[in-house]
Amino acid sequence: MKRSDRLIGMTQYVLENPMKLISLPYFSERYDAAKSSISEDLTIMNKMFKDEGIGYLESIAGAAGGIRYIPQYNESQSIAFIEHLAGRLEDPNRILPGGYLFMSDILGEPKTVSTIGRLFATAFAHLNIEAIVTVATKGIPIAYAVASFLNVPVVIVRRDPKITEGSTVSINYVSGSSRKIQTMVLTKRSLKQGSTVCIIDDFMKAGGTIDGMKSLLKEFDAHVAAIGVLAEAEDEEDERVVTDYTSLLQISNVDVKNTQIDVSRGNFFN
Amino acid sequence: MKRSDRLIGMTQYVLENPMKLISLPYFSERYDAAKSSISEDLTIMNKMFKDEGIGYLESIAGAAGGIRYIPQYNESQSIAFIEHLAGRLEDPNRILPGGYLFMSDILGEPKTVSTIGRLFATAFAHLNIEAIVTVATKGIPIAYAVASFLNVPVVIVRRDPKITEGSTVSINYVSGSSRKIQTMVLTKRSLKQGSTVCIIDDFMKAGGTIDGMKSLLKEFDAHVAAIGVLAEAEDEEDERVVTDYTSLLQISNVDVKNTQIDVSRGNFFN
Repeated sequence: MKRSDRLIGMTQYVLENPMKLISLPYFSERYDAAKSSISEDLTIMNKMFKDEGIGYLESIAGAAGGIRYIPQYNESQSIAFIEHLAGRLEDPNRILPGGYLFMSDILGEPKTVSTIGRLFATAFAHLNIEAIVTVATKGIPIAYAVASFLNVPVVIVRRDPKITEGSTVSINYVSGSSRKIQTMVLTKRSLKQGSTVCIIDDFMKAGGTIDGMKSLLKEFDAHVAAIGVLAEAEDEEDERVVTDYTSLLQISNVDVKNTQIDVSRGNFFN
Repeated sequence: MKRSDRLIGMTQYVLENPMKLISLPYFSERYDAAKSSISEDLTIMNKMFKDEGIGYLESIAGAAGGIRYIPQYNESQSIAFIEHLAGRLEDPNRILPGGYLFMSDILGEPKTVSTIGRLFATAFAHLNIEAIVTVATKGIPIAYAVASFLNVPVVIVRRDPKITEGSTVSINYVSGSSRKIQTMVLTKRSLKQGSTVCIIDDFMKAGGTIDGMKSLLKEFDAHVAAIGVLAEAEDEEDERVVTDYTSLLQISNVDVKNTQIDVSRGNFFN
């Protein structure tokens, strides 16, 4: 097989398997090529990935070694993406009662969601995260996008126990926006005890929901290594109960009367 | 730029933009190469994609022409994937009360979900689908996987109206499993009138939920071009109300007492 053919196949395989250790013999056998040729291919790929701003190949030496694709979105592309997203969200037609924003159309775009996931993966790739935890419903697509770049499973916390899930652990929490006591449920067998996890959600005001997830995860002895929210907004009444988080967007001055709204970069870019 | 570098960049771009018409001048400019070189690159790529069983490049002639990557998973890989999945699901520990199966772990794996999406995209790529419609919660990840391969947005029908969504259309329907009247809601501005859509869900017994979605979509003058469910199972009490669907898996003989279960290929493979 020619190098040009091989590079196409290898690029596809590497991109589909981020964070996974791939041994050189795997490619050698798959494409019937000498290890030295594969090694050269990977050098070319590493340089090109860096040029394209999509990450790099990490080399792991030794008998059990190989390469791992670390997805890293470069800064200028990240900023351009978020500035464009912020511009779209500043549309006054998006303002909903209660100071919320209509974002379902944007969260329905697979490519936008995937890029959001790529940004969080860039920030969290070094944390050895073993699972992404989110709460139904709107955080789910973002959670899968992050998970696909970090190559880890998604665990979904539910607000209602479903009969199709088996035995569960549940907690009560107070949601900042409604000040009502709500229930959160996680199926026992969905998360191993003592996992290192990352919490992902679409929106955070005071952070009551995320704080509830943290309490629930304590019951699983989980270590919350990172919290990522697409958009944060100030809560008019309550102080924020979650402080260590990464946000891509910051929503402020939502003025329902004058249909005004400001959307700027989140603390991801600080 | 050398051909080898260019092929890596082009492969990445093409894979990230399935179903999208990409003009040759786009690549010419991006990689500063003659159109004839780009044309040769695409011929190599097309052959390699076919060899790897992941689809092909469709050529569109004329001034507004270019290429489109049509994701098509080949048959032997599709069968191997589904047989492996069926084997995992036949584990008696998965049986839950009511004859349901615990599938959350499998549906939590981004790679498994992505391959499920790839299979549905293979079946539905020629239908000019404009949006994927699913119902919260378990169908969501599969819907995004299909959508990412077909390059169309996802629209999520909810079982409870949320304050963050704006004005909605709702219908009542009878769910086969509980025989209770339930409500389904779709935000008005989330789907254009007259769209061609594909319904995706994780599980179907009698099909009451999917039938409800069809009724709701009628209110949007939508044309349901395809219905895809990961797993279908017989309903013990009700006859199936949805007949034109594509399933990847068929679950039968769920014997809660003897913890026995049969999982075989769905009608996707007929």
